[in-house]
Amino acid sequence: MTASLEALDLDPAFALHRGGKLEVRATIPVRNADDLSLAYTPGVARVCSAIADSPELANEYTWVSNVVAVVTDGTAVLGLGDIGPAGAMPVMEGKSLLFKEFGGVDSVPICLDCTGVDEIVETVVRLAPSFGGINLEDISAPRCFEIEDRLRELLSIPVFHDDQHGTAIVATAALTNAARLIGRPLGELRAVVAGAGASGVAVTRMLLNAGIGDIAVSDSKGLIFEGRAGMNPYKDALARETNKAGLTGSTEAALAGADVFIGLSGATISEQAIASMTQDAIVFALSNPTPEVHPQVAARHAAVVATGRSDFPNQINNVLAFPGVFRGALDVRATTITENMKIAAAAALAGVVGDEVRADYIIPSPFDDRVAPAVTRAVADQARKDGVARR
Amino acid sequence: MTASLEALDLDPAFALHRGGKLEVRATIPVRNADDLSLAYTPGVARVCSAIADSPELANEYTWVSNVVAVVTDGTAVLGLGDIGPAGAMPVMEGKSLLFKEFGGVDSVPICLDCTGVDEIVETVVRLAPSFGGINLEDISAPRCFEIEDRLRELLSIPVFHDDQHGTAIVATAALTNAARLIGRPLGELRAVVAGAGASGVAVTRMLLNAGIGDIAVSDSKGLIFEGRAGMNPYKDALARETNKAGLTGSTEAALAGADVFIGLSGATISEQAIASMTQDAIVFALSNPTPEVHPQVAARHAAVVATGRSDFPNQINNVLAFPGVFRGALDVRATTITENMKIAAAAALAGVVGDEVRADYIIPSPFDDRVAPAVTRAVADQARKDGVARR
Repeated sequence: MTASLEALDLDPAFALHRGGKLEVRATIPVRNADDLSLAYTPGVARVCSAIADSPELANEYTWVSNVVAVVTDGTAVLGLGDIGPAGAMPVMEGKSLLFKEFGGVDSVPICLDCTGVDEIVETVVRLAPSFGGINLEDISAPRCFEIEDRLRELLSIPVFHDDQHGTAIVATAALTNAARLIGRPLGELRAVVAGAGASGVAVTRMLLNAGIGDIAVSDSKGLIFEGRAGMNPYKDALARETNKAGLTGSTEAALAGADVFIGLSGATISEQAIASMTQDAIVFALSNPTPEVHPQVAARHAAVVATGRSDFPNQINNVLAFPGVFRGALDVRATTITENMKIAAAAALAGVVGDEVRADYIIPSPFDDRVAPAVTRAVADQARKDGVARR
Repeated sequence: MTASLEALDLDPAFALHRGGKLEVRATIPVRNADDLSLAYTPGVARVCSAIADSPELANEYTWVSNVVAVVTDGTAVLGLGDIGPAGAMPVMEGKSLLFKEFGGVDSVPICLDCTGVDEIVETVVRLAPSFGGINLEDISAPRCFEIEDRLRELLSIPVFHDDQHGTAIVATAALTNAARLIGRPLGELRAVVAGAGASGVAVTRMLLNAGIGDIAVSDSKGLIFEGRAGMNPYKDALARETNKAGLTGSTEAALAGADVFIGLSGATISEQAIASMTQDAIVFALSNPTPEVHPQVAARHAAVVATGRSDFPNQINNVLAFPGVFRGALDVRATTITENMKIAAAAALAGVVGDEVRADYIIPSPFDDRVAPAVTRAVADQARKDGVARR
């Protein structure tokens, strides 16, 4: 074992991960018996009793109101798919690290050894008194939709499936700025979304809410349209809301004359298909690590190109959204995250770029320190307007 | 609300607890895109894949092997009883803080919104891939016995109900030194334990394992003896293993001529009853915050007196055991915590006092920095001897 660990550690990613990436620390001193008698018994008993009498005091006198559970079942991890709970942990730890670093949000990675919708829902409900919010992560579609819907119904704390809504917020912000750059309103644009998983569905829904002209979604069997046989209820619903043009057939065929392509599928799109789009086309090839079309190839034909990668311009990265979304929601003790709060987050994110928008700058860098405060403020303000803030 | 918080904060225990006592932090830097590409995508994917292929690598490349879940349902919190999961959180946070401070063990407080044995067991099993150990805390008897037994059976990581075994280890260490001080072997001593809850049962079991002469246990209905009607199966089992003398009646009556009293009940014991014990009596009045008999009153009649309080000598405090027990178990990746490991912990703890033993020094202070290393070493060594260490 030792020898093989040494071999693995030659990869700097492994060396960095030795022993994990997180720790839990005290925020108060425990140097002597006096400290102990306040932080622990007997002093702590008075705090416990007060909370037992008035449970909302848990938000004031425990860490609960600042701590989010990052919950996965390991069924849809990054581009790796169903690798199980143990394999998912490094990603969940990474998420926790980003929560703290970018939003000052404490979070705990929870990789569950169960995949049934009922089991996951009941487990999270039982855990809920320990957390101020639930970030669902890397749970495969279509289970992720039902799990999120049911938890939102059952809990009075924010529940947010980041693969859906984080991606949707950042893609919507980027598309808002891209449309502005080419001088066309969203309502005029026809988009094609490749991928009807968690992110494909959520991006589509948010762009519809934002007023996009038309949008066609494809899965591994081609375009989704009303009446297509053998679809799950989520795709049936999507068929009713999308594809006004009634297109059938392949993703590539649908791109002819389209204004926007958003890839969230892991599929490959040919240069020809990109070339068949309108003149000022917008191409978001978001699959990681391999975009649907290489950004340099796409740039030969498109006015604006974005990817999910940090080594090309315009990185569509969820870290631009989730730390600020939870920070804002926790700051006002929101009972839920509304559609309006997500739209406000996207608008705030687009606003950070503002008038500086360029073809290679439609979205800010994750290290732009204006991002999280702008998203936080927008989400908190909108929570108050929507009447879901508790303070 | 604001005014009443200000009023609460006049109590330094409340002021200290504002915002909670814990945080989750990164142990690695995330200052730029290069850091992010190793700690998160794309670098993290290689680590995830390696763990998916060889799940034991999670112990090397995630924080799992250093993190313990502190799990409660809030049914038996301190001396407060069944105050529910929200009210229990300050104690669980305190526990986490002590784990880190005294054992370098990361831990996460989990207060569950369910109290059924089946529900708690299945929830902890589902959480298990995220943790290297499970510390059960403040779960009421007799459910706590079945929950621990079933989890020990189902999981291959340490499961330890601290109210039982932490107390038992520290009380056994203290009694070992007290017996040594009065110059009598454990096998000659007759003890009376008041309280047949989690700690009463566990202390009794451990003292039987350590070879105490005889031990009688009482609950709110008096002494437990074979054939007493209406007892739960755990008390029936206790009746078969204890009370060789066949005593019936009250705790106080049983103290006449007894060598050792251990109070874990919250009951009151009269000075007369203490005076009726043998000449070199040992009195551990461990209820908190009010001992069964005031230690100064007990000292008029007993040779050695201990309490659970920090403001008297000989504090029987679980923090002397659990950080080192888990540190030792985690260090060798023990699959369980055996009886031998607990006995080794007690012996190591008694050994820290060693030849310096005095009537007011039968157990070290929680702030004696020899304690955790001694317990850690003893537990790790014993795990190897017992064949439950994975490294």
